[in-house]
Amino acid sequence: MTVEKAHEDMIERVLKGDRRTASQLMRIVDDRAEGHLDLLGALYPHTGRAFTAGIAGSPGCGKSTIVDALIGELRKQAKTVGVVAIDPTSALTGGAILGDRVRMQQHGLDEGVFIRSVATRGAQGGISPSTVDICRIMDAMGMDVVLVETVGVGQDEVDVRMAVNVNVVVLSPDTGDAIQIMKAGIMEIADVFVVNKMDKEGAENVFQELRMFLTMNEATRDTPVVRMEARANQGTQELLQAVLAFREPEERTRLRRRLEIRKRAGEVFTEWFEDRFRDRIDENIERIQRGETTPYEIVGAMKEIMEGFNPKQ
Amino acid sequence: MTVEKAHEDMIERVLKGDRRTASQLMRIVDDRAEGHLDLLGALYPHTGRAFTAGIAGSPGCGKSTIVDALIGELRKQAKTVGVVAIDPTSALTGGAILGDRVRMQQHGLDEGVFIRSVATRGAQGGISPSTVDICRIMDAMGMDVVLVETVGVGQDEVDVRMAVNVNVVVLSPDTGDAIQIMKAGIMEIADVFVVNKMDKEGAENVFQELRMFLTMNEATRDTPVVRMEARANQGTQELLQAVLAFREPEERTRLRRRLEIRKRAGEVFTEWFEDRFRDRIDENIERIQRGETTPYEIVGAMKEIMEGFNPKQ
Repeated sequence: MTVEKAHEDMIERVLKGDRRTASQLMRIVDDRAEGHLDLLGALYPHTGRAFTAGIAGSPGCGKSTIVDALIGELRKQAKTVGVVAIDPTSALTGGAILGDRVRMQQHGLDEGVFIRSVATRGAQGGISPSTVDICRIMDAMGMDVVLVETVGVGQDEVDVRMAVNVNVVVLSPDTGDAIQIMKAGIMEIADVFVVNKMDKEGAENVFQELRMFLTMNEATRDTPVVRMEARANQGTQELLQAVLAFREPEERTRLRRRLEIRKRAGEVFTEWFEDRFRDRIDENIERIQRGETTPYEIVGAMKEIMEGFNPKQ
Repeated sequence: MTVEKAHEDMIERVLKGDRRTASQLMRIVDDRAEGHLDLLGALYPHTGRAFTAGIAGSPGCGKSTIVDALIGELRKQAKTVGVVAIDPTSALTGGAILGDRVRMQQHGLDEGVFIRSVATRGAQGGISPSTVDICRIMDAMGMDVVLVETVGVGQDEVDVRMAVNVNVVVLSPDTGDAIQIMKAGIMEIADVFVVNKMDKEGAENVFQELRMFLTMNEATRDTPVVRMEARANQGTQELLQAVLAFREPEERTRLRRRLEIRKRAGEVFTEWFEDRFRDRIDENIERIQRGETTPYEIVGAMKEIMEGFNPKQ
């Protein structure tokens, strides 16, 4: 069987919703293996149908419970659900703890649910994981809704926001007071807010403070805030309604494309650079250690190299 | 005055600890303004004396209070302290809330303390902030210890870990139970753990669960865990002792240099790429929107361009 034929077969099986083939493709994409761009390119025209939502929040805010509740509600409506769980990973050691091992047990037998953990290898592997690619594979498989679960509000979330139509941010009385919310810089990121653990002391305060902050700013005045008690499945329908009602502005879709192109450009170059200059990099690290050069001289040299490069457009 | 003379003057003033000039230099670095690499390169030989520590933890865990307590303790010992506060920022809007406006009030009159907020502009500005550069400027100013305060455990923290000798991770009873700690993937990142808010219910449990997890793994068995009640200044001395006692393995210093070179290479290229192909990028975004091409075809084209580029080593 030729490579082309094998690729065609693979795409066809993914489009039919074959889970094993989809997992195989996700591994190929994760490893940046030979042919992964062709495969993703062939799949791309079959994407754009799924509704994608990011669910972000600090550890302990109840994200996973909320995602589980959303899965339950969507399944009741006979909708299929993909879940991408972003697991932050030690960038210096590369270790990962895969949340889906626990999660899979509950939904493992349901053919309408597909859960995938993605470890954030960060700068360690040189290449961060392609949340957007995993979402597209789930989209092509026929998942109606794809939920991307993620911790925190940092750089990882840029990747997530690049992939999703709507951003949900979860707060809970445990995540601290209003100034903490402000400090986390999340006010303008969220399209929908959840205040979870409404049964806990202080939850109503968080809700009121959040509403107050949101009304202070024209841009955030109309952001929906949903009260939840996810453990008791309270507020799930309201959240789902708010999520599915959100319409992404076209300008933001363009911005997401731009971020994607920029990120991939950086990756292509970093790979080329490390491949081409492997020995020189090692040598320069030793020279820095010995005090013979500085990281800034090396950047200067890189800039000079790039300035001399003038490819035809 | 020539540019060279102006630069020399600036470096000299920073080395004397001139705060206004240091702030000015930090702005030049933040903006990637003309000459910033030369300035940093000239400063570099005067760095390497400061001890740098990252203080990471979820919003609400009490990081800021811990940093304030450490400042107090270090000042008692007549040591100067630099603080870099990483403020996560909306990547899509570029908004930032600067924590130092609040913090500066307390230490604003102390010449031995220098606090700087860094907004994580993320993929929005194309270039993330240079925590490592800010740390080096503080180092060159003569700060004995530089503390880098940061939220979460994601990609931003790769930048922080690139800059610091020792990583402190703060937990509190609010940040959730043991499985949350595991999920956050932080076990192997930390050189020193703090369990803060020991006066709160559940804090001793967090401490015991954490100790249990750490002993399960050879690599983490000896990681110190410090009990704190930062608000009451309890445990500050113990923490400072644990932090200053940590000796970074030489292999890790090399790895940090490697991460730095890789990151800067990615930045140099992304800048070149956006400069050189500005019109083409806009055109391709529209072509993707119209379904005429895919992001993967564009990556393929980039790869081809790079493969054709063969600079002399």
